[in-house]
Amino acid sequence: MFELHPRLKQDLLPIKKMEISTAYLLPDSDNPWVVLVPEVVDVKELHELTREQQALLMEEINHVSHVLKDLFKPDKLNIGALGNMVPQLHIHIICRFEDDRAWPNAIWGTPVGEDEAKIAEYKAKIKVRL
Amino acid sequence: MFELHPRLKQDLLPIKKMEISTAYLLPDSDNPWVVLVPEVVDVKELHELTREQQALLMEEINHVSHVLKDLFKPDKLNIGALGNMVPQLHIHIICRFEDDRAWPNAIWGTPVGEDEAKIAEYKAKIKVRL
Repeated sequence: MFELHPRLKQDLLPIKKMEISTAYLLPDSDNPWVVLVPEVVDVKELHELTREQQALLMEEINHVSHVLKDLFKPDKLNIGALGNMVPQLHIHIICRFEDDRAWPNAIWGTPVGEDEAKIAEYKAKIKVRL
Repeated sequence: MFELHPRLKQDLLPIKKMEISTAYLLPDSDNPWVVLVPEVVDVKELHELTREQQALLMEEINHVSHVLKDLFKPDKLNIGALGNMVPQLHIHIICRFEDDRAWPNAIWGTPVGEDEAKIAEYKAKIKVRL
């Protein structure tokens, strides 16, 4: 049975169960930041998913990307499957802005914004659209 | 007509033309690092590709992932579409090792290894298998 990695459970706010993944918000008030976790047991790398699972995941990445683009008008999306700290497969979809704290560098590992009202607002706005 | 972005042309070494992308090596002697550039005009984000283009690209990501895993036995692959510096869509597929220079953080923006013999060796090994 699939179980969310304890570190992801601690760090992420659930938004919505989709077909293959659950979408979570990574709480960062600067950059609206979604993490998709495909609920497949023991998968660490993208290429370990079946073709069918990959196609479902790609649809969910497309859907989240469109929603984030519409809601927050980012200058760029950053999409990544890293997993160096948490080996359970998870996909980051992050709104990047030309004036954000890390631009034009990668944003992983930089300190997140902590405005809780804004984070709650991001979560509510995304939830309605997913 | 598709033209490779001048910055990518300058930074990357071509390995092989595939069905939708060309595979390049980002020259880093520490971490074998492939960049796939789908040869589609004016595409900045993954979700701007058609479903068919996405499926082809996913096959190429799978193929490169398997080849890198086989050849270099990385502890983890890092896959990312960032594009903050170069807006033309390109996908990084990077071998990460628990003792590499950036582990467990993201590796983008850290200084690459410059051993040219090793870089040539990576390129040749990958080319044979792609």
